[in-house]
Amino acid sequence: MKIYDLSHQLNNHSPVYPGIQPPEFIPAAQIETHGYRETHFRFHSHLGTHIDAPAHMIANGKTLDQLPVAHFCGETIIIKTGNPIDIEVFSGLEDKIATSEFVLFNTGWSKFWGSPSYFGNFPVLMPEALNFLLRFNLKGIGFDHISADSMDSKDYPNHYAILGKNMIIIENLVFPDGFAENSGEFNCFPLPYENADGSPVRAVLKCKRA
Amino acid sequence: MKIYDLSHQLNNHSPVYPGIQPPEFIPAAQIETHGYRETHFRFHSHLGTHIDAPAHMIANGKTLDQLPVAHFCGETIIIKTGNPIDIEVFSGLEDKIATSEFVLFNTGWSKFWGSPSYFGNFPVLMPEALNFLLRFNLKGIGFDHISADSMDSKDYPNHYAILGKNMIIIENLVFPDGFAENSGEFNCFPLPYENADGSPVRAVLKCKRA
Repeated sequence: MKIYDLSHQLNNHSPVYPGIQPPEFIPAAQIETHGYRETHFRFHSHLGTHIDAPAHMIANGKTLDQLPVAHFCGETIIIKTGNPIDIEVFSGLEDKIATSEFVLFNTGWSKFWGSPSYFGNFPVLMPEALNFLLRFNLKGIGFDHISADSMDSKDYPNHYAILGKNMIIIENLVFPDGFAENSGEFNCFPLPYENADGSPVRAVLKCKRA
Repeated sequence: MKIYDLSHQLNNHSPVYPGIQPPEFIPAAQIETHGYRETHFRFHSHLGTHIDAPAHMIANGKTLDQLPVAHFCGETIIIKTGNPIDIEVFSGLEDKIATSEFVLFNTGWSKFWGSPSYFGNFPVLMPEALNFLLRFNLKGIGFDHISADSMDSKDYPNHYAILGKNMIIIENLVFPDGFAENSGEFNCFPLPYENADGSPVRAVLKCKRA
């Protein structure tokens, strides 16, 4: 089995969505003085590689703690795509998507993580591509950039449509350099807090090998 | 496949190790006022069901981000035990432990979570049992109570011995009512922050079924 970490590393300089308070990881205990090390965390629920719960934007949508833990793992298809994400990208993949529980888009945008370009014109799902995906019984859809909708979106059609179907959105994924896998078992288990509108996660892909 | 959540749910009343600041989950954005929900987190790295990194107590021990993501998943054996955890509990299990990557102890102590008794005389590994386990090439050892050492321990022999062998410790696990599994694939992926001395996790067990 080959195991891939699809998560950005977090620190006090991690990029956040504009307007959101930056994260703080504060040393809280040291071996020299306390006999052990601890860290104090201060950050928002949508930091780094994270899940949006349906309740993030849907008034009566489910929180992450209202979904079974099995909702956060399962077979995934990983689709390489250009910009934008149009319906042609699914050509020949209908049967594979039908047996998958997650669809993740490898757009290559994660290379801009940490630069102002990260908040630029990243690839988003066009309406026809969105509607195609909504026909399937997926647990979630994931992107290697910061939002399912463009930064200048006023009405967030992709968020509302995906979360409105009780699916989760995974944002800020990162595919390693040279990544060529197109399927595997995806895992993105959220922190188990009450009324969870979202959670940073360690996103992990397990690929079985002969 | 049957999937079990082995994690305590977190909220502002979650028990913490004596002397540690209680967690705060603070609503930071509301649909009515902001158009979306977010939560601000303030808590320590060893909250709830969590991992101790070797660096938690070993001066030159590895942090979680220095370990490959594969260190946080693998085959596990789950051992029901009384109090204390003595070497007899491993009788007949040596071959099974030799092919496992994690050993988790189901002591039943998690039923005291949220009551003062949780910090009482929970089952800990006796020296002979500890030394037996250290002979194997494990990734980690887990407990359904708050510490690998007793609350009145002054020298933390179990922490130092386990973490000193580059293994992780998982604390505050919870086994569901009626739980009878004795093996499966354990997952406890930490948050991907730098210099991680520990991390709250969503601990998950996957059991294959015919």
